[in-house]
Amino acid sequence: MVTIRDVATKAGVSVATVSRVINNKGQATPETVTKVLEVIKELGYKPNVVARSLTSRKSNTIALFVPTISNPFFPELARGVEDVAHSYGFNIFLCNTDDERTKMKNYLDSLRDRYVDGIIINSLNLTNKDLEQLHSHGIPAVTLDRTFSTHKFSSITVKHRLGAQLATKHLIDIGCKRIGLIRGPEDDSTAVQRMWGYRDCVKEYDWFDQTWMALGDFSVKSGYLCMKELFQRHPDIDGVFASNDLMAIGLLKAAYEWGRKVPDELSIVGFDGIDMSQYTIPPISTIRQPIYEMGRMAMEELMRLMREPSSNFIKKELDVELILRESSMR
Amino acid sequence: MVTIRDVATKAGVSVATVSRVINNKGQATPETVTKVLEVIKELGYKPNVVARSLTSRKSNTIALFVPTISNPFFPELARGVEDVAHSYGFNIFLCNTDDERTKMKNYLDSLRDRYVDGIIINSLNLTNKDLEQLHSHGIPAVTLDRTFSTHKFSSITVKHRLGAQLATKHLIDIGCKRIGLIRGPEDDSTAVQRMWGYRDCVKEYDWFDQTWMALGDFSVKSGYLCMKELFQRHPDIDGVFASNDLMAIGLLKAAYEWGRKVPDELSIVGFDGIDMSQYTIPPISTIRQPIYEMGRMAMEELMRLMREPSSNFIKKELDVELILRESSMR
Repeated sequence: MVTIRDVATKAGVSVATVSRVINNKGQATPETVTKVLEVIKELGYKPNVVARSLTSRKSNTIALFVPTISNPFFPELARGVEDVAHSYGFNIFLCNTDDERTKMKNYLDSLRDRYVDGIIINSLNLTNKDLEQLHSHGIPAVTLDRTFSTHKFSSITVKHRLGAQLATKHLIDIGCKRIGLIRGPEDDSTAVQRMWGYRDCVKEYDWFDQTWMALGDFSVKSGYLCMKELFQRHPDIDGVFASNDLMAIGLLKAAYEWGRKVPDELSIVGFDGIDMSQYTIPPISTIRQPIYEMGRMAMEELMRLMREPSSNFIKKELDVELILRESSMR
Repeated sequence: MVTIRDVATKAGVSVATVSRVINNKGQATPETVTKVLEVIKELGYKPNVVARSLTSRKSNTIALFVPTISNPFFPELARGVEDVAHSYGFNIFLCNTDDERTKMKNYLDSLRDRYVDGIIINSLNLTNKDLEQLHSHGIPAVTLDRTFSTHKFSSITVKHRLGAQLATKHLIDIGCKRIGLIRGPEDDSTAVQRMWGYRDCVKEYDWFDQTWMALGDFSVKSGYLCMKELFQRHPDIDGVFASNDLMAIGLLKAAYEWGRKVPDELSIVGFDGIDMSQYTIPPISTIRQPIYEMGRMAMEELMRLMREPSSNFIKKELDVELILRESSMR
């Protein structure tokens, strides 16, 4: 392997001079700079980035924490982050935490020690203390979507409760009389907000009680199982708001097996706006989040924090939109 | 921040002694080791991992390169890698290359410089030279699935051509008379092998020519568009082998819009065995790859290469299996 010493010898200068040229610090004549760069190219020398990061503490690497890459929502989000990151010459390490505290903690420790330049985190299990620790290590962080928004760091989220209201109200407007909810995990703040949005719209009705809500985990399979549960409990159900599109896909399957025609006998609205929701039979109405845009904004905000470490944090809450498709067209 | 010097002072020993204890090298009395470890715990000292990696060249981190996380195949594969990696105490950095040479190269450079312990690579654009460079830096690599298997490094793949033969032969067996192919990208060796498997089975028929093959890119959308293309060219088409499940999902949608009943008027077989293929209406017959198992084996092989750097490489080609579902049950 070519070392800095080899470069110095070949260029006829000291190691310190080569170092100054590489790091673009201190003084060197234009002739020396030209000569050193020529030799570096000739020998194919690569500065040791780990050693350099000890002084510069920069790695041109960003980490993106997602709770799961199995839900297409997160790959679409990652795309937004990546496109901005690559335009600035940054690499992204994707860290799949499965929303487990231990895994997230391991990643945080490993990245902090290895001087990653910044972190975008989407995790239920992130604490204020984690964010403060990153801050004290000089690593800016932006939280995304699912984290509590009370912390003193930058965060980007969407109007989950409002979205759920739009979905439920739409089902009422098209004439549904008994509307169920397939909700997401109890410890997930987005799932909780979407549940409240649904409740806001149905709580005044005589028929409504807890049994109209089934507890899913955002997977296709859980949507399928929850819908069967709701059919059994309430054969008269004629509308369902599924807290995400993957569960709506599973729900569609259960409705088919149960012999209920969508949308005539059962109308469905999902949440997220993942690409797949257009390709189901019938296509699924959904509350579209600006997924790509969220990723893009998070990365832009992280770049801002890296450039201006002492600037104020920001909190953004993006709008959502009801997309009407066949699953709720009566 | 607590430094090694703070630990030494508090423990009443030299910095060198603390270093010996941390790195578990050289001599120290049991009393000293106990004392130093106590102080480390008390002060919350964390050894600087970057500095340590300069000597040990170990980071307990593995990188996994995938061409896209948008196809659920790769998250399922990553799951297998992660489960094994975590059981050994390793973190995984996921690198999404979009099958672009530049992105892959950037990741390789960045990781080599940062002393990642090993790499599992699934990419079209990997060259023998890339693998040799990693090798010369002492970073073991295992290639997965889509890479050429002629290189002198460990690789894990499945029997793509055989799988395509199973799929096509099955369509012939159930009585399909005109069978089309929705193929994957031309530069993707798995797509090419699957195409050959299809051709092996249909080339002898009078009706067969190039126009029965439509060129997709493994996305849902391309499956949808390719199927429309095939319907236009060949209204008499009654069977389709889609080179992956995502395209089969898109195909199903096109068949629905075109008014063709699946499986009676059009039978469909996909490839991969992703979870989603069970939830479509109707569920899609497919050639199941042992996706999770492939990920698991790749990681086990990487662990073996890290433990025994000079051992022989291995090449494994795993079996595939035809899973019969409603989309091809006549």
